[in-house]
Amino acid sequence: MDIVIIGSGNVASVLGRKFKTGGHRILQVVSRNASAASKLAYEWDTESTNYISLINKNAEVYIIAVADDAIGDIASELAIPAKKIVAHTAAAVSKDILRKVSSHYGVFYPLQSLRKEMTLLPDIPIFFDGNDEKTTKTLEQLAHSIAREKVLRADDDSRLKLHVAAVIVSNFTNHLYSLAEEYCRKEGLDFKQLLPLIEETALRIKDISPQQAQTGPAIRHDKETLEKHLQLLKNYPQLKNIYLLLTESIQQNK
Amino acid sequence: MDIVIIGSGNVASVLGRKFKTGGHRILQVVSRNASAASKLAYEWDTESTNYISLINKNAEVYIIAVADDAIGDIASELAIPAKKIVAHTAAAVSKDILRKVSSHYGVFYPLQSLRKEMTLLPDIPIFFDGNDEKTTKTLEQLAHSIAREKVLRADDDSRLKLHVAAVIVSNFTNHLYSLAEEYCRKEGLDFKQLLPLIEETALRIKDISPQQAQTGPAIRHDKETLEKHLQLLKNYPQLKNIYLLLTESIQQNK
Repeated sequence: MDIVIIGSGNVASVLGRKFKTGGHRILQVVSRNASAASKLAYEWDTESTNYISLINKNAEVYIIAVADDAIGDIASELAIPAKKIVAHTAAAVSKDILRKVSSHYGVFYPLQSLRKEMTLLPDIPIFFDGNDEKTTKTLEQLAHSIAREKVLRADDDSRLKLHVAAVIVSNFTNHLYSLAEEYCRKEGLDFKQLLPLIEETALRIKDISPQQAQTGPAIRHDKETLEKHLQLLKNYPQLKNIYLLLTESIQQNK
Repeated sequence: MDIVIIGSGNVASVLGRKFKTGGHRILQVVSRNASAASKLAYEWDTESTNYISLINKNAEVYIIAVADDAIGDIASELAIPAKKIVAHTAAAVSKDILRKVSSHYGVFYPLQSLRKEMTLLPDIPIFFDGNDEKTTKTLEQLAHSIAREKVLRADDDSRLKLHVAAVIVSNFTNHLYSLAEEYCRKEGLDFKQLLPLIEETALRIKDISPQQAQTGPAIRHDKETLEKHLQLLKNYPQLKNIYLLLTESIQQNK
């Protein structure tokens, strides 16, 4: 397919790379960030502009990969020919925000944490949606071309729920890593020694459910160890609160 | 080295496998759980007993890999010849619990989440300690034979601190996976679709620090999305509390 990408951030960069790998043609990169746009255009052997009024009219699909709160602005300025397909990439924004842009609009949401710098692209499950059959079919086809089996239709409501789950397993988990790193640094320990444990914890739930995989002093109701740990956290009030709440939650969930 | 393993649970099973792979000889498995012990003995082509009084006296090293609160009992019953080295595998228990067992005692703590069922053994950083140079050197050598570079000496205090950090990055993280799985199940979503995101989140911190890697609505102070998420969690009070506390913590840590 011929695609125009609006945006030049993490999602735009990685989706564009996946589209190229999937055999598609990127006709143009549109972004207010001229230098980021031209960098991507160079990478993809295409052109770029920082004026949305100069958008290329010949694509089949227009992908809006910008920050959630910028989608509305883009939608109000975007003028594309009738019958073109337009989709944004946000989990937490309704597809209807694009209603006035085209009669064919939808969503193309990559459920993954994406960074520009990635060269080895990870698996990216795609959740798509469209306001009519043509849009839905086209976005599904596009999704399959870059994600094979991990492709599902998801309406606004499901996408928002998926996003909640994604925040829990990714943003919150990463914050725990961050707190542990800070704790290790302050206590003179080497955080890197925890990496094999972090990896094992994340990868084993491919084989067993996280409920089965739960271990540690909380689930064993090992009061002695819990007490020792809380004692060590007395100068880390924030971490101590998190320790207490998560310990309680593990014990209730048993 | 010739080793006797006391215990037949997750840690005993996996360490034993690592010892075998590292070229050591396991002279005996001692465990109250006779069937688990004989299963391991069969796997390692050795003998087993469920009477600690029948312990083989010819090993160089005795590894006590049992639950934290069982180490004291074992220590009081264990009779081995003078000059033998004895070590337990617990993070949160002082090495001094073994003071009366031998004049050479220490700790051999694997910082990893281990399960009996593992056949592909993960990287296992080993933290060792000994009451004297002979013990420390021997345990260090044993550690290097199964873990190569991920080997460090750690006293009681450091080991306990490492354990706190391990609980945070492994037990708590796994609990978040568990809560997200439950949420997905109740909301009719497929938790498996989150696995690539979980994997990416865990693996990328090999390359960038978790602080740099933090993304999501909390760190962006995206109030609109945070509000939508909290609305969706209104029937999940426990998860909602965790959401609020971790969001606050992310925003304070910025």
